This record gives sequence, C-alpha cells and structure tokens, in this order.
Amino acid sequence: MQALIPDSLLNDLNQMQQRMLEKGLPVLVVFEGSSGRVNGRVNSELIRCLEPRGVLYRHFDPTTIGSPAEILDFVQHTPAKGQLGLFDRSWYSAAIERYGDGDDWKGLDNMLKVSNDLERYLTLNGILLIKIILKSNVSILKEYGSQYGPKMPRRSFLSLDNIDPQKFKGSVLDHVYERTDTEYAPWNLIKIGDIGKTVIETAEVIIKTVNKRLDSEPPPLAMPEIERTFENPRNCLDLNKRYNMPYDEMINDLSDEIGELQMELSLSDRSLVVCFEGWDAAGKGSCIKHLCHALNPRGYDVYQTKAPTEEELKHTYLWRFLKGIPEKGHITVYDRTWYGRMMVEHIEGLCTEEEYRRSPFEINAFEKMMKDSGIILLKFWLDITPEEQLSRFEKRADDPLKAWKITDEDWRNRSKWDAYNEHVNIMIESTNTKHAPWTVVGSNDKKYARVMVLKSVADAMKKELS
Amino acid sequence: MQALIPDSLLNDLNQMQQRMLEKGLPVLVVFEGSSGRVNGRVNSELIRCLEPRGVLYRHFDPTTIGSPAEILDFVQHTPAKGQLGLFDRSWYSAAIERYGDGDDWKGLDNMLKVSNDLERYLTLNGILLIKIILKSNVSILKEYGSQYGPKMPRRSFLSLDNIDPQKFKGSVLDHVYERTDTEYAPWNLIKIGDIGKTVIETAEVIIKTVNKRLDSEPPPLAMPEIERTFENPRNCLDLNKRYNMPYDEMINDLSDEIGELQMELSLSDRSLVVCFEGWDAAGKGSCIKHLCHALNPRGYDVYQTKAPTEEELKHTYLWRFLKGIPEKGHITVYDRTWYGRMMVEHIEGLCTEEEYRRSPFEINAFEKMMKDSGIILLKFWLDITPEEQLSRFEKRADDPLKAWKITDEDWRNRSKWDAYNEHVNIMIESTNTKHAPWTVVGSNDKKYARVMVLKSVADAMKKELS
Repeated sequence: MQALIPDSLLNDLNQMQQRMLEKGLPVLVVFEGSSGRVNGRVNSELIRCLEPRGVLYRHFDPTTIGSPAEILDFVQHTPAKGQLGLFDRSWYSAAIERYGDGDDWKGLDNMLKVSNDLERYLTLNGILLIKIILKSNVSILKEYGSQYGPKMPRRSFLSLDNIDPQKFKGSVLDHVYERTDTEYAPWNLIKIGDIGKTVIETAEVIIKTVNKRLDSEPPPLAMPEIERTFENPRNCLDLNKRYNMPYDEMINDLSDEIGELQMELSLSDRSLVVCFEGWDAAGKGSCIKHLCHALNPRGYDVYQTKAPTEEELKHTYLWRFLKGIPEKGHITVYDRTWYGRMMVEHIEGLCTEEEYRRSPFEINAFEKMMKDSGIILLKFWLDITPEEQLSRFEKRADDPLKAWKITDEDWRNRSKWDAYNEHVNIMIESTNTKHAPWTVVGSNDKKYARVMVLKSVADAMKKELS
Repeated sequence: MQALIPDSLLNDLNQMQQRMLEKGLPVLVVFEGSSGRVNGRVNSELIRCLEPRGVLYRHFDPTTIGSPAEILDFVQHTPAKGQLGLFDRSWYSAAIERYGDGDDWKGLDNMLKVSNDLERYLTLNGILLIKIILKSNVSILKEYGSQYGPKMPRRSFLSLDNIDPQKFKGSVLDHVYERTDTEYAPWNLIKIGDIGKTVIETAEVIIKTVNKRLDSEPPPLAMPEIERTFENPRNCLDLNKRYNMPYDEMINDLSDEIGELQMELSLSDRSLVVCFEGWDAAGKGSCIKHLCHALNPRGYDVYQTKAPTEEELKHTYLWRFLKGIPEKGHITVYDRTWYGRMMVEHIEGLCTEEEYRRSPFEINAFEKMMKDSGIILLKFWLDITPEEQLSRFEKRADDPLKAWKITDEDWRNRSKWDAYNEHVNIMIESTNTKHAPWTVVGSNDKKYARVMVLKSVADAMKKELS
C-alpha cells in the first residue's frame, strides 16, 4: 500500500487541502470514463494521499438513480466549505447510460442543458468544479488494465460499476464533451497508462486548478438586472373573492378527492411538491393544515423553512431544501421556501446583491430539474390587503390563545409593506415560468383561500396522474 | 373529513402542543395493536386535530427493518424538544414479528431487555414516552372494522402494514406486556370500538399524560455512583513497546489483509464500527489515515465528532452519533465518539453530574444494541505519557507546516492531565464490557501504535467474519 506518487507531490496535496480549509473553498472533482476499475482505483490512490478529515468521496451507480430526485441527488452530496469532494461517476454517467444508444438526441440535449445549469449553479455558489475524463481504449486496457484491478472482480458494491463501456464511445461521448466543455467548468482529458503516471497526472491537474483558484479569486460575474418577463396574475386579482357554494361540503368533497388522488400518486412514479408563500397572517398555516388533513400521514412530510443552520451555511443556497425533495409516490409540503432569498433575505440584507440577482435564474433552473424528474410542482402565493393583515394582527394580539402567533418581527415586516410588495411582484414576474407557474390566491376570505388551495392541488394531481 | 372529536378536546390538544413547545418537552406516542388499519386510521384522525408544524409521524414496516441499524433506527426518528412524535408501530412490532411464533423465548427476552434499556434511555434523556395498545379482536373488528378503512385496501405503502395479526395474540403478547410495562414507560390499553369513541379515548390518554408531566416535572432520578467493575488494561500497559518486525512490510501486509476482509464484509450482513479516542497528539489522525488507506473508499465513512449543533442539542445525547451507524457491509470510523461525555464534557462542565453518572449505563446499553444488531465494534484508546505529549506539542509548534495542529485548547487540556487521567480510568473501568471491550494501545512509539491498530482491526474482522 505504498503511495504511488512522490513525496513532493504528497506535500503539495496536503498544503492544498490546508489552504482550502483556511479559505473555506469547496472543491468538487468529477471523474468520468469508460473503465470502472480505472476510476475506482485512481480515486482510491488519491484518497491514500489526502487527509481523510477533509475528503468526501462518493460513488454513484447510474442504474440506481431511479427516484425523481435524480440529478438533484447529486447536489445533496456536494462538498461543504473547505472540503474536497470526489465524485466517482456523476450526472454524465447517468446521461450516457440513459441516452448512450444515440437514439434520443433531444432527451440527451435536455439532460445536458440541465447539467450545464447545475454546474453553473455550483460555480456561482462558490464551488470549484474540476471535471476529469480518464480516457482509455481496448489496447491501453490490455496493456495496463491489470494494474488497476482484476477485470472480473467479485460482485460486491465495492467493485461493481454497472456501466456499459460501449456507450462511452464515439459520437455520443463527443457530443457530450462538446456541449459541456464550458468556460466555468471545462473538461480535463487524462489518457490512462501506467498506474503511477495516471495518478500523478490526476493529482497534478487537481493541485494546479485548485491553487490557481486560491491564488486569484475570479472576479464576481456581473449579473444582469432581473428580467421581469412573465405575466403577473396579481394584476387582475380580486382579493375579496368568495365562493358561493357551501364551504363544509366543498372542503369535505375536495379532501376526499385528494385522499383518493394520493393513493394514485403512491402507486405511480411521480411525486408532489406543494409550496406555500404569502404575507404574514395570510393563512399559510391554516391552508397547510387543511391540505394535510386530507392526506394519509404515511405519504407526506411538512418541510419548515427556518433560518439556515451553521452546517447549511457551509453549502450552496438550495442545498438545505433538497433534503425535503420527496421520494417516488410521496408528497412534501414546503412551509415557506427557497423564495425567501427574493423577499426577506434581500430586504433585510441577508444576501448579496449578486446573490439576489441570480436567484431567479437559479430557482427557474432548479424547478425545471424538479419538473424534469417527475415532480408535480405547485407554488402558492397567498395574497391579502394591508387592511386585512392589520385586522388579523389586531385580532391575534387580542386573543390570549393566539397572541404568541404575532411577534415584533411581524410588525416590523408590516412596516416594510411597500418594499415587500415590490419584491413579490419582481419574484412572480421573474419566476412565473411555464414549467412552474405561480398560483396566486386572493385570501382576504380565509374560506375561499382554503377551497382554492385544495381545488388547485386536486386539479393538478388529476391532470398529471391521468 | 369532519374531526371526530369535540371542539373542547380539540382546544385541549392545541393548548397541550403549545405548552410542550414553550417548555421544550419532547413527547413520543408509540402505537401498537393487531390491526394495521385501526392504528393507521387513529393516527390519521389524531393528526387532523393537531398543529402539523409540531408533529412528527412515522410508520415502521417491521419486515423492512433488516439492516444492522434495526432498533437504533427508531432512535434517529425520536422527536426533538417541543415536538410530538407519533410512531405507528415500533420495536414491539419488530419483536413480535420476529419472535411471535413463540419458539425462541430467549431471543424475545433479549429483545425486550434492549427495548427496556432503550425506553429508559429515552426517558432519562427527557422524552415523555406514552405507549398505547389499540386492542381489538375478531368480533370487534367485525362490528366496527369498516369504520377504520377497507379490509382489503389497494397495495400501496399508504395502506400495507405487513403484520401477521395472529402473532399479536395469546401468550407472546401477554409476555411482552408483562416484561415491558415499566414504571417509567407503562402501557395504556385502549379497547377499540366505534371510531369516534376510540379516537376520543386516545386523545384523552395523551392529553392527560402530557399535562400531568407538564404540571409537575418528576424529580430527577438519583443516579448511583459510577461502578468501576471492569478490568483496566492501562494498569499493565507498556507505553514504550515497539515492534521488532520491519514496519513497512507489516503495514503493507496488514493493509492488504484488511482490504480483503473488507470485501468479505461487503458481501456479509455485518458491518464495522471503529472508534478512536486518545490523548491529544496521541496519533488518532495518523492511525485513522493508515486504516482508511487500507480500505476501498466506496465502503467506509469517517465520522468527525464535533461540538453538537443547535439541532443536535434538541435531541437525546446519542442521537447525533446514530447518523454514522453503517449500513450492512459498510464501515464507519469514528474520530472521537460518544465517550466525550465521560471526559471533556464532564471536566469542562458541559453536562450535568446526573448526565455524567448515567452515561456508562447508557453507553453500555447502546453498544449492546450495536453488537446485537450485527455490528463488529472496536474501541481504541491511544495512550501516551505526558512527557511524550509535551515533546510532540513542542515539535508541532516548531514546524510551520504543523503549527496549526496545536491550539491553546490543547495546552489547556494538557494542564488538566491528572483530571483527564482519572476520567479515562473511570471510563474504561465502567465501559470495558465483554460485548464491547476497549483496546488500549501504548502509543509512545507511533509506528507500533499504527501496526497494533491495523492488526486489531484485521484480527477482529477475521474472527467475526469466519
């Protein structure tokens, strides 16, 4: 178990890790290539040269990526600040396994677009991405393959790779390479040969790229102004709308219908995400309660968005929300969401101007990934007038059972109504996409809002599951 | 979807949740009983009456609990401070499914002992445990069963329960009841009938028990002094021991052997936990590095024990360590462990006297569970003399590449050498159990320590996997 690389390079690696830790730089090295044993062994050898405390290694079996999480699953395993992440296979293996036969170029291109969006997101969020293809061919493997491990190892998760090497050749791979060799995440081609030489070359690529980044932080990308290109349903909204039908009956019928649709969902390969945003006291809690009451508790979770923890702050912005992405057949209800960045975080100065400006881009790409991986996505904005909010605040303050629900922060937010109002409009006009449109619910009448929410959920499930 | 319980009871439930939140009381309600549809429906109805933000519902399918995590898996899902946890089935269903045929009373009794230890642990850590059996029989189900749901529902995870109701009858159930109806976690028997009546009775049991606890905090259990009953291998340890064999050869041979044993482990239903504790600068990091270098990275994780996060502080003490428990075939290396409570936490006043005194009891029970669920467990204490530590500290301080490794805290800890030394002796003499013995390694010679660690790991794996 001698290290295959010379002591000087070992020192360089250790110093690199040390500097990454000091500067809080997260680095993600992605390994691709046709030979699983080469990829596995090069990773093992690299790890032997690294301080294990800062390394996050993960092997992905592209054939097991079957849940709607799919590409989102990768984001959850990205390194925290100061960590060196090693991905043994990635979204590229997943794409090549699925589209490598070359008979669905459109599907492949969509997946590659998602990959580029993902990599742009990771880069903008401060992760240094190093993509490496360990390139081999039949004659090279014949000469050097046995150095990397037995050709037919025992059938353990330690050695199996479930890759069809045939798909890693020819026009599909060239196409993937061309479409994803971007400015912010270029490919590094390493032709494999003698194992010592290959490991040294790989280590050198990593050291060079990391040190270059540590020596000179790239200038922050100038983000353009947010584009407000989408329709804003708030413009033609009647906030005082009421239903004329009997309320209890409506709620009961819709609840029964949603219960039945949940059973359909549980037997399908889809999942459901319901997002709630809205003014303080607009009725988010009560809508969530009514929705949950229609559901079988075995099949849903409520994700409470709170201030990020220390650990969460070490990761990219959307990382913490990914923990809530539902498995196949399951439902997640988000009580506030990733849209916090486009409202409270920007208004209260909790994010930079640049982070704010890029958030609709990131969010639209993120929601597209959700959509593409089979998630039925609903986003509710519960809208009320400032007068209605005031009356609800006062009612709460007067009720000893509900007084705890109203805090100084609520009054402070209320004093910034105009700023919030403008932010909400910008948010909706920049993220009301076709793949993830907003449902704005006039909520001055609580009962109307609840019925509308249940009806929208039922309609969306019915449409998507039929 | 009308609530089945009267408004007054609804109010009582909401006030109860509110008080739990204010006082930070975690409550765990465990539901058992022969009828899956009754359990599921009663839980659904209860949840309809609760504020969803504070509820943590979880259904356990006893037949899917196959990994070594097993009973430990339940602990990971216990409620945080202020939360109301609802377990739809629990370790009891798991025990009854496995031992319900009545042909392995010894196995059953061992599992029930583990259950009692677990419940005692949860109780001592501040969780209020409410255990409920929803009792039915054939004639009751014939009369009321259809109120709770269809007898043959569609085959979805929403409805399937995978319980053999036959096993929930007769002598095995009586035996389980008798052995686990403890002072700190008594059973509540609720005979099911009309669904409204059953849900009301269940809600009343929960409200009564929670309010009683909230009204009068039970006096803290007087914990006896820690018993120092086990042998202390430090007493006859030669800290300066060296190996006479060639070091590089030993390390290489042992690494190869461990690599092969890891392949065996990956194909077995066992898993491996290796714990490292020791003096500052005793060489934990370097031993971990050498062990990891022998391993295939696909099969191991390193768990870094750090100061607990805010979220972790809302849970019981061992909760955060459970995240590291390995799946079948996998390995976790703990870089410091749950023994922090018996050293730094007590010395620095980070835990109460009572928490300190009960920790060996808790830890021994916890390690017994690990052992019982198929985990191969190794605990290393790396021992050095104070003189050797001083010389290493000074060497580090002088080396610009290693100076960061030595902090003020290290010097502060060193000034408390005698207190630590006494705590280490107490720790070993109270937790050096037969099921989880300590391996104390004289580490004044670094090379000897590394060889000893690798050899102990190889020997343990060989013995357990043969």
